Amino acid sequence: MGDPSGVGSEIILKSLSRIGKKSIPVIVGDMAVIEKTKDILSLKSLPRFSPYMEGKLGDVELIDLGILKDVRYGVISPEYGEASYQYLMEALKIVLNGEVHAIVTCPVNKKSFELAKIPYRGHTELLAKIGGVTDYVMMLANRRIRVSLVTTHVPLREVPTLISFDRVFKTVFITHKSLVELFRVESPVISVCGLNPHAGEEGLLGNEEKIIREAVEKAKSLGVNVNGPFPSDSIFSTMKSDAFVSMYHDQGLIAVKTLDFKRTVNITLGLPFIRTSPGHGTAHNIAGSGVADPSGFLEAYRLAERLAKNLLTKSYT
Amino acid sequence: MGDPSGVGSEIILKSLSRIGKKSIPVIVGDMAVIEKTKDILSLKSLPRFSPYMEGKLGDVELIDLGILKDVRYGVISPEYGEASYQYLMEALKIVLNGEVHAIVTCPVNKKSFELAKIPYRGHTELLAKIGGVTDYVMMLANRRIRVSLVTTHVPLREVPTLISFDRVFKTVFITHKSLVELFRVESPVISVCGLNPHAGEEGLLGNEEKIIREAVEKAKSLGVNVNGPFPSDSIFSTMKSDAFVSMYHDQGLIAVKTLDFKRTVNITLGLPFIRTSPGHGTAHNIAGSGVADPSGFLEAYRLAERLAKNLLTKSYT
Repeated sequence: MGDPSGVGSEIILKSLSRIGKKSIPVIVGDMAVIEKTKDILSLKSLPRFSPYMEGKLGDVELIDLGILKDVRYGVISPEYGEASYQYLMEALKIVLNGEVHAIVTCPVNKKSFELAKIPYRGHTELLAKIGGVTDYVMMLANRRIRVSLVTTHVPLREVPTLISFDRVFKTVFITHKSLVELFRVESPVISVCGLNPHAGEEGLLGNEEKIIREAVEKAKSLGVNVNGPFPSDSIFSTMKSDAFVSMYHDQGLIAVKTLDFKRTVNITLGLPFIRTSPGHGTAHNIAGSGVADPSGFLEAYRLAERLAKNLLTKSYT
Repeated sequence: MGDPSGVGSEIILKSLSRIGKKSIPVIVGDMAVIEKTKDILSLKSLPRFSPYMEGKLGDVELIDLGILKDVRYGVISPEYGEASYQYLMEALKIVLNGEVHAIVTCPVNKKSFELAKIPYRGHTELLAKIGGVTDYVMMLANRRIRVSLVTTHVPLREVPTLISFDRVFKTVFITHKSLVELFRVESPVISVCGLNPHAGEEGLLGNEEKIIREAVEKAKSLGVNVNGPFPSDSIFSTMKSDAFVSMYHDQGLIAVKTLDFKRTVNITLGLPFIRTSPGHGTAHNIAGSGVADPSGFLEAYRLAERLAKNLLTKSYT
């Protein structure tokens, strides 16, 4: 359910009727928050929630943790940081036990997380840690484009020092592997961004492209169809690729979100389970007003369904 | 004509028949290069060029500097850097004398410029220097979006240290002034990007947003309708604005070029004359092959025409 003070419960409620019968959604959160959001949306009634593990296709299951008795929307607080952390831990538990096939996370608030003294900058970092994984990749995707990030939630000032052979190579390789195994793309093509304007323009505008090129060449020598580094301002409109690899958060996300903000999905590659999330944040400014658009959440749910099916089908053939 | 070894002569020749009769284009370059490009494009003949200052509407004028007798396409060399510099100086001379109303520059190659020991990183910096201006702004625009840049052709590593109150304020102010005076936008609205992911997320992901906010508030107190800093990954798709102000090259250009690469135009604001340029580079990889797309150049020419008309009309009313 994500941050209880954000739009999580709203986008979930708005999506339930459109989710279909390919899977059984399990909501992990607080019933009190869901009830309050129901009133705000002027819904006559909630769907009948089945207890966990007792639903069938077409039902919705709920794990009510009963942490909050009420909620104020659009508020940063340690209480809400802690609640969203507890929702996530419960979801992690059941996915790591193999009881469910994927997690779709609603946004958390990084500041509330920090106030609750949760030592992770966000979902992605936390999921990787608890999932026991150091080699993971944050990918953003919609129906137009997929982009993997070499660095994620760090100040721009720190980005150039974090660009290393290992990080670039790992991102390329995990992206390639995921395209094949998870997305079922045959012979995927990957294009890699430079860090500097004009991809450094032969060293005139920066030198990090040398390291990036070495990592690209290494991956290529191992059979990955990857090219670059290319100037990042034109790469997204001029190169046809199954995925792009971007050096920093906004370099990749500006392209993805500018092309189709509403349906942008965040996927963590390399985890021992499937995890997607809408590409937007908690939207505290509109939380509780009933105007949140559920498109991103729905798209994240459907992608999780599709990836889970791809994985399961593979296991049984 | 830009770099003689690039696509400049080709995109000019391809555009001439589509330029119409609202203005008289004056080509500044080398006839030998134009002749060679004509052969490559298998054109039966060139248009009849009128001598400078002797054409009428519908004609094309040529200032043949006679520097090169031949050209090899796609080559980086000091000779070509020097030739493109000379073309530009001649164009600057006639625009500064008031004999023509605008300059449309074809791309130069920054490496050839450097080999020719021309102490500017590119057109924009050179035009500002010769134009006697330190307060200028690089704007990229197409029919979807306009973006001004606070920093331009510098390594990403240097960007955070260059974000200052003065630079941000100046960029906002010159952008506002140009929207009103040059583009004739009534009551323009401007949105400003943050530098860091999530616009720093309340200081968690960087602090430069504090300086940016101060500059925005200052401009606002002087009557400019400007807001920000906003997270740059979502600003371009969620904010309606007459212009965006971006902190660095790729932050702005990824948005502009991903939305409409072909028709992206570069405009220098704050110069004592109008200057536009296609948003692409010399395209050395395809120069001489006849496949260059003239859309960007045509769009740059038409925008220069429109801005010149806006300015002239204003002078006479």
